[in-house]
Amino acid sequence: MNSAGSTACCDDLPMELLPGWKNPSSLAALKLIRRTIHRYPEPGWTEFLSTARVAEILEELGFRLTWGPQFIRPEFVRGRDARAAEEGKEFARASGVSETLIRKMGDYPGLVAEIDTGVPGKTVAIRVELDALAVEEPVNIEHLPAREGFVSVRHGIMHACGHDGHQAVAVELARFVKTNLPRLTGKIRFIFQPAEEGSRGAYPIVMSGVLDDVDVLLCAHLGVDIPAGTVVAAPEKFLCTTKLDLEFRGSPSHAGMQPQLGRNALLAAANAAINVMALPRHAEGMTRVNVGALHAGEGRNVVPSHATMEVEVRGENEAINRELASEALLRARGAAIAFGVEMLSRTVGEAIDFVPDESITQLIAVCARRARFCEKVLPTHPYNGSDDGTLMIRCVQEHGGRAGYFMVGAAHDDCRAHAAVDFEERYLLTLYDTYANLLVALVGNWK
Amino acid sequence: MNSAGSTACCDDLPMELLPGWKNPSSLAALKLIRRTIHRYPEPGWTEFLSTARVAEILEELGFRLTWGPQFIRPEFVRGRDARAAEEGKEFARASGVSETLIRKMGDYPGLVAEIDTGVPGKTVAIRVELDALAVEEPVNIEHLPAREGFVSVRHGIMHACGHDGHQAVAVELARFVKTNLPRLTGKIRFIFQPAEEGSRGAYPIVMSGVLDDVDVLLCAHLGVDIPAGTVVAAPEKFLCTTKLDLEFRGSPSHAGMQPQLGRNALLAAANAAINVMALPRHAEGMTRVNVGALHAGEGRNVVPSHATMEVEVRGENEAINRELASEALLRARGAAIAFGVEMLSRTVGEAIDFVPDESITQLIAVCARRARFCEKVLPTHPYNGSDDGTLMIRCVQEHGGRAGYFMVGAAHDDCRAHAAVDFEERYLLTLYDTYANLLVALVGNWK
Amino acid sequence: MNSAGSTACCDDLPMELLPGWKNPSSLAALKLIRRTIHRYPEPGWTEFLSTARVAEILEELGFRLTWGPQFIRPEFVRGRDARAAEEGKEFARASGVSETLIRKMGDYPGLVAEIDTGVPGKTVAIRVELDALAVEEPVNIEHLPAREGFVSVRHGIMHACGHDGHQAVAVELARFVKTNLPRLTGKIRFIFQPAEEGSRGAYPIVMSGVLDDVDVLLCAHLGVDIPAGTVVAAPEKFLCTTKLDLEFRGSPSHAGMQPQLGRNALLAAANAAINVMALPRHAEGMTRVNVGALHAGEGRNVVPSHATMEVEVRGENEAINRELASEALLRARGAAIAFGVEMLSRTVGEAIDFVPDESITQLIAVCARRARFCEKVLPTHPYNGSDDGTLMIRCVQEHGGRAGYFMVGAAHDDCRAHAAVDFEERYLLTLYDTYANLLVALVGNWK
Amino acid sequence: MNSAGSTACCDDLPMELLPGWKNPSSLAALKLIRRTIHRYPEPGWTEFLSTARVAEILEELGFRLTWGPQFIRPEFVRGRDARAAEEGKEFARASGVSETLIRKMGDYPGLVAEIDTGVPGKTVAIRVELDALAVEEPVNIEHLPAREGFVSVRHGIMHACGHDGHQAVAVELARFVKTNLPRLTGKIRFIFQPAEEGSRGAYPIVMSGVLDDVDVLLCAHLGVDIPAGTVVAAPEKFLCTTKLDLEFRGSPSHAGMQPQLGRNALLAAANAAINVMALPRHAEGMTRVNVGALHAGEGRNVVPSHATMEVEVRGENEAINRELASEALLRARGAAIAFGVEMLSRTVGEAIDFVPDESITQLIAVCARRARFCEKVLPTHPYNGSDDGTLMIRCVQEHGGRAGYFMVGAAHDDCRAHAAVDFEERYLLTLYDTYANLLVALVGNWK
Repeated sequence: MNSAGSTACCDDLPMELLPGWKNPSSLAALKLIRRTIHRYPEPGWTEFLSTARVAEILEELGFRLTWGPQFIRPEFVRGRDARAAEEGKEFARASGVSETLIRKMGDYPGLVAEIDTGVPGKTVAIRVELDALAVEEPVNIEHLPAREGFVSVRHGIMHACGHDGHQAVAVELARFVKTNLPRLTGKIRFIFQPAEEGSRGAYPIVMSGVLDDVDVLLCAHLGVDIPAGTVVAAPEKFLCTTKLDLEFRGSPSHAGMQPQLGRNALLAAANAAINVMALPRHAEGMTRVNVGALHAGEGRNVVPSHATMEVEVRGENEAINRELASEALLRARGAAIAFGVEMLSRTVGEAIDFVPDESITQLIAVCARRARFCEKVLPTHPYNGSDDGTLMIRCVQEHGGRAGYFMVGAAHDDCRAHAAVDFEERYLLTLYDTYANLLVALVGNWK
Repeated sequence: MNSAGSTACCDDLPMELLPGWKNPSSLAALKLIRRTIHRYPEPGWTEFLSTARVAEILEELGFRLTWGPQFIRPEFVRGRDARAAEEGKEFARASGVSETLIRKMGDYPGLVAEIDTGVPGKTVAIRVELDALAVEEPVNIEHLPAREGFVSVRHGIMHACGHDGHQAVAVELARFVKTNLPRLTGKIRFIFQPAEEGSRGAYPIVMSGVLDDVDVLLCAHLGVDIPAGTVVAAPEKFLCTTKLDLEFRGSPSHAGMQPQLGRNALLAAANAAINVMALPRHAEGMTRVNVGALHAGEGRNVVPSHATMEVEVRGENEAINRELASEALLRARGAAIAFGVEMLSRTVGEAIDFVPDESITQLIAVCARRARFCEKVLPTHPYNGSDDGTLMIRCVQEHGGRAGYFMVGAAHDDCRAHAAVDFEERYLLTLYDTYANLLVALVGNWK
Repeated sequence: MNSAGSTACCDDLPMELLPGWKNPSSLAALKLIRRTIHRYPEPGWTEFLSTARVAEILEELGFRLTWGPQFIRPEFVRGRDARAAEEGKEFARASGVSETLIRKMGDYPGLVAEIDTGVPGKTVAIRVELDALAVEEPVNIEHLPAREGFVSVRHGIMHACGHDGHQAVAVELARFVKTNLPRLTGKIRFIFQPAEEGSRGAYPIVMSGVLDDVDVLLCAHLGVDIPAGTVVAAPEKFLCTTKLDLEFRGSPSHAGMQPQLGRNALLAAANAAINVMALPRHAEGMTRVNVGALHAGEGRNVVPSHATMEVEVRGENEAINRELASEALLRARGAAIAFGVEMLSRTVGEAIDFVPDESITQLIAVCARRARFCEKVLPTHPYNGSDDGTLMIRCVQEHGGRAGYFMVGAAHDDCRAHAAVDFEERYLLTLYDTYANLLVALVGNWK
Repeated sequence: MNSAGSTACCDDLPMELLPGWKNPSSLAALKLIRRTIHRYPEPGWTEFLSTARVAEILEELGFRLTWGPQFIRPEFVRGRDARAAEEGKEFARASGVSETLIRKMGDYPGLVAEIDTGVPGKTVAIRVELDALAVEEPVNIEHLPAREGFVSVRHGIMHACGHDGHQAVAVELARFVKTNLPRLTGKIRFIFQPAEEGSRGAYPIVMSGVLDDVDVLLCAHLGVDIPAGTVVAAPEKFLCTTKLDLEFRGSPSHAGMQPQLGRNALLAAANAAINVMALPRHAEGMTRVNVGALHAGEGRNVVPSHATMEVEVRGENEAINRELASEALLRARGAAIAFGVEMLSRTVGEAIDFVPDESITQLIAVCARRARFCEKVLPTHPYNGSDDGTLMIRCVQEHGGRAGYFMVGAAHDDCRAHAAVDFEERYLLTLYDTYANLLVALVGNWK
């Protein structure tokens, strides 16, 4: 760990942070990249095309890549569907990814790309999410990607959470780093994380040790429920979360001829779902609970013998979250017992709360204020969601480093009506500039 | 056991069964008695007034009475509420029952009244139910008791199942027996059973042994879902039944300040109720299931810590019924586990199916055909209900006796629309005549 | 309609029904065909390979084929998935069915194959089901198809209801008819019905008119819950049934950030499922109800906005069935309203009860008694299931014809433990012989 | 409205606020009164004895009383059970309240008691709750009232929310006012409110106008979830709340004989209860929801035709609360529709959030710091409950007055384990002193 001594700090910084720095990016460039990425969304643990894309660009720029088990420790991978991964590889192949690259990635997408300035200094890491959501993209004219012709080529999959923008910014930031390499110190490392959705990817990355020597970890998110142009320096109310997969195993029988012989897994699951949704509120903080999917039954005339359920609980702190997770399992177990079926559960994802480092938060505020299209910087604002980047942040902090997480408001005017949302592209520049400024401030060679 | 040798059998009997017999009853007499009884209904285990009434009349006629623990074995009593019993005594007192009689009855209403002809012969027992239902009597003009001024004096309690008619017939039958005593042989015994509703009273009576020496046990029921004037000689599909009381014990907490600390017994009970109602049908026979009552909660702003539930299951045979009862408990137990509350269950009633003795069935048909207002005799018809008289019947049969159970259709024209129903009074005569004819046939001195 | 005059009737028939008749089939032949069919199961409305197979064989034997809209009236088709049908064609192509045949079938599998003897006489039709079930075939050694190497080549699809055996018998019967053509009169017609499962296929066939001129319609089923070797001449308690597809449409929202904005279709469906299963029993006859499948939700962290459900109700008669179907819809509609989601329903299948023609029932008994391996003939036995062949039967009866439906017990010794079951193959001969005898009896040229 | 000019403000006050003031109360006196009140708890709208008690004492002290419709406007009364009120009067009579007083109170308990100093000045009102809870008092030795012999004389009713303490303090405060009358200015008014539990009583009081001319309204609550000796000057997170009574009306039928004819109100209510408990969380603030009671059914063997339910929702602001109430009704209405039963709803209580007046909050802090046993003053602390005193507060504020609400921590060491709790009595003195100091500060004659 380096001391923070050489870091230029705060409001005595010049308004123009980057005199003499070459800032290669433009809104046009960011939009171009983002829109390409938007068309080819990949769900968690299948981001082979996305990984290959950034791998090729960053390798050419001189970054050193770390792949596979050195980055993702397989024994800690959760919430991965092997068949979906194979289909993901197929999609990547069909989209032109070479067999060599496919082999390099192995079973797990994602990578670390690092460049060493050769000058002693901090190791700064930037986390970038690769995955998209299982959401059907709207095709109506009000939806920008539809209007301007870059909707997802894949039915039922969409970059609806801004990760396409994050990747575009990362690619341009990598070019910024390369261009300004002589003016930088230390090491700059991009963590391209698969499977952020469902809070799955961070855990096996943390376990690989690639974050242990990081001095400063930076995370950010475009926010569609934050006013456009507003940057939140350190959002609060990151909800701790546990993602649970439940399975109910009963036994089938003919629903007409022997209804009494079956053991009805569908009814057990339906009861579990309803009662999990009725978990009590908590006096000590916010809670959330969702049964996001339920699939049950084999055929109309068979007493259903199998059911699966995707559950998530969230709590304002770890104690509440643990309590909720354990109560959710109790509801499900009771339902299973009531119907004489077996219940199996697996934890497939996890995220914790975010404890910002004050010095980084202040630096973010300073850097954001100098970013294009930034109109306002708020010290904080409720996040009310979960991000397993928090696991990485805690890892860095436990090893003596610091971390920051900021949000860039990029709401369309009418965005709140949509569940699957799009963002206003010009704020990609705000995100880009803030990151670039942070790099200058943290590892710029100010001598 | 006597042989059936001396019994006059079947269709070689004269159309007029009772030449020379004195038949003292008339519709006017039956209506008068029935209407008085109708006004003073008493729920199960509280029939102190009803018991006292028949006691006084039958004792005066020369019957010998057996009361209390010799008739009702306390250790086998189920589904009795001690407080309700005390209130029942109070009602009896207020209605003029003497303290002496109250003391004689002790804690349990009901009695056996027997008269011995002095002539060797069969012991014939007739079962008569005493209890009323927790049903609010309609007061509209379409309802005969309202129109003719004999509605229940007690809110929420009503003779809605014909037991008032059965008692009226029994009283007149006792007079018939007394009047014709010289023409009779053997012993005639009336079993005035409390708490037939809920299938509670028969069990402790059976255990007292008062049925062990019975040669022929006769039961009958007025039927409002059978066409008026039709007698069913041996109804089928008496459903075996188990009555269960469930209790859920959780723990309370303030619903606003500490919602997460409570253990919600109301939710456990609500879930149990719904899932008990969803017990599967059975391929091997009819089933029924009902959650007849659910009471839960202490106050609006308290997480409910207590709930009780009244459940009944019925099955076409004992195996099905047992299976249903055990599944119902499983549903309830699972619900309790799901919500972390305790569940207690008690069996409070039971009835089995009815296996008629062919010779008695035939005799019933013969006797019914000769009864006033009888238009038709059906060999059988589905009963689809339960009656714990079946426990008495099995007891008699296991001791070598025989038994019959017949139904007398007494439907009003518009009865099916009502849950709480009334019967057409003239068929009291049909019931009376059939019973009287049966006594003549079974224990008449035909010499 | 011909008169029944020339039909040889009943017990004055010689024990050997077929002197001089050529009976080409053997157990070896039946097993061979059945096992091939067993390996290539096809779900309802996708039986293109099965149709092509019987088409080729029967056409070669001289039967005249009727396909497509003349057989299946598209406007009455229910419960068909267009995409599954396309995949079915693909499977048929991959299994060697020529493009010419695929084109002939068009969108709907199934066909009528008729041969005319040229001699005036009755038109006898035999119904044969083509479809398989969405059931995973067991691969353990206790399962005969696994032990002897003819398990399904398709995961999750299996001939678990004996239709493979029915088809094998039909193919051999066609050969029997061809071989004995000179000894026969009238016309023999095979109705190869798609989509019997789910009670879907019969309706558009009935509407095509191909049954209007049938004198005698014969249906039969191998029965794994009937003792091996027992033939039931006219099973009773065919349950009327209605198959309903329900869809719930809510709206999604982020379960962490805006839980209150979603409209939860999963909860509506779960409630509907539970309450449909809790539909009350019916005093006037048997009922069945099943929610065979429920699929809901888009992703773990999204309030589920979509759910589908497969429901079936059955009733001992049409009134009960209609009542149940309408109550099931009420439960679902209420659940939708409770959660502010939209509910759509579609009837996708229907069957009615079976009213046998006494003369055909008697003939079946006679013919079965003369069949190989038949040990016993029962006049009746409860079926407790549904078959939309009943729609065909009623159609024939309404046009003045007669119909029979018999069952051939073919239980393995240990079959009752399995939901997906296999049958004892030698009883294919019993089925074959009974059918052959019936043809001889009905349209044999007895002169 | 007077100006606040003459009010001595804040920290320039002497530590001993009351030099020369006569402070007649002691812990012994407070305990004595409180324990008497504790023994005779009365649920909301039945506080006739409690009202009579304070009426007699305050009238003797010279306070002018306002009763009945001038205080409680009948047309705005909610959540009142007429029969319980009659029983309440009976209890009051049996406890020695004279018929004259009973008549004065009329149908509604509660009163305003005011004393006029004769010197111009502010009108200060103190709100005091009269009602107890439907909670069974513990009788174990750990429970102080049991140990020291002052448990409730009424089964199932208990002062479990501290209102006994509030009343004791009020009585002693009235004596303080009387004793120090010459040193006071303006008017001092006690509002003895019935039916605070369930948020029922404040509304018809507000509508009577007795608060319209109040300059300063003071409310306070003993708090068992606040550390002993801590005073909270202005608690936050008073939850807006709506109390709903729901009724479901179906139709009965015999559960064995005609299960299909009933309309099951119990199932509708059970479903409504579960789904109300599963109302979604809200992104914009805290929510609470409770189904505190459910009563359904007439008898075990009757399809339940009637059910009632007590529901409450709470929200951090009025918009959230309104949304929840409307969603709760939607869940219930849907359940009713699903089961074909009628649903009726009534709003029986309401409270809003608390917006403190800064100057009063500061004064409370000052006055509390000078109270006996006060160890700490917190500016705020979450309340997480509801109090319809908030309606009075808003009324005063809308008429130009100011208001404060403080809490006095009085936790026993082991209190959190109990739902029905008791408080540490010595903090009655803290509450008393704080109130007394506030009166001195607000209407003391400082000249």
